[in-house]
Amino acid sequence: MTRVVATGTFDLLHPGHIYYLEESGKHGDELWVIVARDANVKHKPRPVIPEEQRRCMVAALRMVDHAVLGDPIDMFRPVREINPEVITIGFNQHFDTEVLVRQLAEQSLGARVVRINKYPGGALCSSRLIASEILRRSNKDPDT
Amino acid sequence: MTRVVATGTFDLLHPGHIYYLEESGKHGDELWVIVARDANVKHKPRPVIPEEQRRCMVAALRMVDHAVLGDPIDMFRPVREINPEVITIGFNQHFDTEVLVRQLAEQSLGARVVRINKYPGGALCSSRLIASEILRRSNKDPDT
Repeated sequence: MTRVVATGTFDLLHPGHIYYLEESGKHGDELWVIVARDANVKHKPRPVIPEEQRRCMVAALRMVDHAVLGDPIDMFRPVREINPEVITIGFNQHFDTEVLVRQLAEQSLGARVVRINKYPGGALCSSRLIASEILRRSNKDPDT
Repeated sequence: MTRVVATGTFDLLHPGHIYYLEESGKHGDELWVIVARDANVKHKPRPVIPEEQRRCMVAALRMVDHAVLGDPIDMFRPVREINPEVITIGFNQHFDTEVLVRQLAEQSLGARVVRINKYPGGALCSSRLIASEILRRSNKDPDT
């Protein structure tokens, strides 16, 4: 059985997340998702939705077999435990694929790294854009 | 086979929605969800997420067998087409159960109406509270 690991913050779920996870699942038989801890999100504003709620929402998705929270200190700990054959990264995730492959090899993890392309369609397919839309409406219509 | 219909707006999905749908599914074998059209949401602020995206997110949930958009004019049209044995309503949905049963009978629909209780746990389990949290952060921290 081929285990695939996908990772992400998954704050304010949108069809771009669904696309990333569906495409990730096509690379194997069992899809594991490592959901970033609140404390580990440093490259963008901290998530609106608490980590356990984000994990619970990802776990409720049809194409996801297991959703686990990341490790607060060692990002490779859950990857070692799952020991996947494939790790997928989203089109906008900030990993450098070659650096990641080298880091995995240093951990004796031979997973193949696959970058998933951008979701081709749809407005508001970004947690940031959803938040911006909520702010825009609030400025336009203070009663909303 | 017992068909169950659940309904709602499902804007900014949260664990309260998951709970409502999971509990709804327990009342039968096949869960259909009728997702409200943007134009039909009149009793609260209009949804942030467009209707087709809201439907697509609900359809991606494990416990949902079919997710369809409501009818812009006749709210009973999709119910007649699905012809469910059970219709569930959420704890905060504005239907009066007795009125709904009478309206269904007038349409020759004999579905049993079941009210699902409130999700017992978790902060931010409401689309309105998620939007409020985004606004609160923006006021507190204009860089976010």
